[in-house]
Amino acid sequence: MKALGQQTSVEYYKCNPEILNDVSAIKRAMRTAAKLAGATIVQEAFHLFNPHGVSGVIVIAESHLAIHTWPEYGYAAVDLFTCGDDVDSELAFHHLKSELQAQDYTAVEMKRGILKPDDMEPVHYKSARELVEA
Amino acid sequence: MKALGQQTSVEYYKCNPEILNDVSAIKRAMRTAAKLAGATIVQEAFHLFNPHGVSGVIVIAESHLAIHTWPEYGYAAVDLFTCGDDVDSELAFHHLKSELQAQDYTAVEMKRGILKPDDMEPVHYKSARELVEA
Repeated sequence: MKALGQQTSVEYYKCNPEILNDVSAIKRAMRTAAKLAGATIVQEAFHLFNPHGVSGVIVIAESHLAIHTWPEYGYAAVDLFTCGDDVDSELAFHHLKSELQAQDYTAVEMKRGILKPDDMEPVHYKSARELVEA
Repeated sequence: MKALGQQTSVEYYKCNPEILNDVSAIKRAMRTAAKLAGATIVQEAFHLFNPHGVSGVIVIAESHLAIHTWPEYGYAAVDLFTCGDDVDSELAFHHLKSELQAQDYTAVEMKRGILKPDDMEPVHYKSARELVEA
């Protein structure tokens, strides 16, 4: 079925806990993952929690990549949400697996925005420019 | 089964397309959704795309909330990723449904980070402070 987006949700297990707690390393790994996948980085937000754990999101032109780490369990949750055919999130997945030194993982893929026939007719609406000019 | 996090992935259909293309309205709706759910906002990144569509992510202390909108299809994809028992993402879901004026929706809930017995023993690792002092 056709869909507007697709999401790969990955659980990385038995990662290197020091990397999971290194916000610079996580940021670097996520940025490179985005680039390798062919995504265009638009904005990002990363945060190192106290006492430990990193959360980070990169907004890409094609949706987003997100990570949350639990160094104490060697675990990281990653979402690779993309749209269009030009981004290959599997390349991001492999890069992150390698950078986090994950010895195990599971992954789920989900289509997002499967439109029904009556949703597929683009809605007419005023763009911001039309509103300003109205 | 016990899990470190939980994720609600919502597809909102037949939304008000003008709201879906209004980055300020989306930002306001997402911030309020986070607060209503009892989450603590840490960082955020929102972007209005050309010709239309909004992407936005709020990193919360309890993981993240993300939205991507397709005004032309009246569709928005939302992820409410939370951890702990203090955040009620259903309250965020209801608020966003109301603010986007969604006439239809589907939702999927997924547990994230279900640990196996040998992953449940916290790993010993050096904290940033220990590394600095070493």
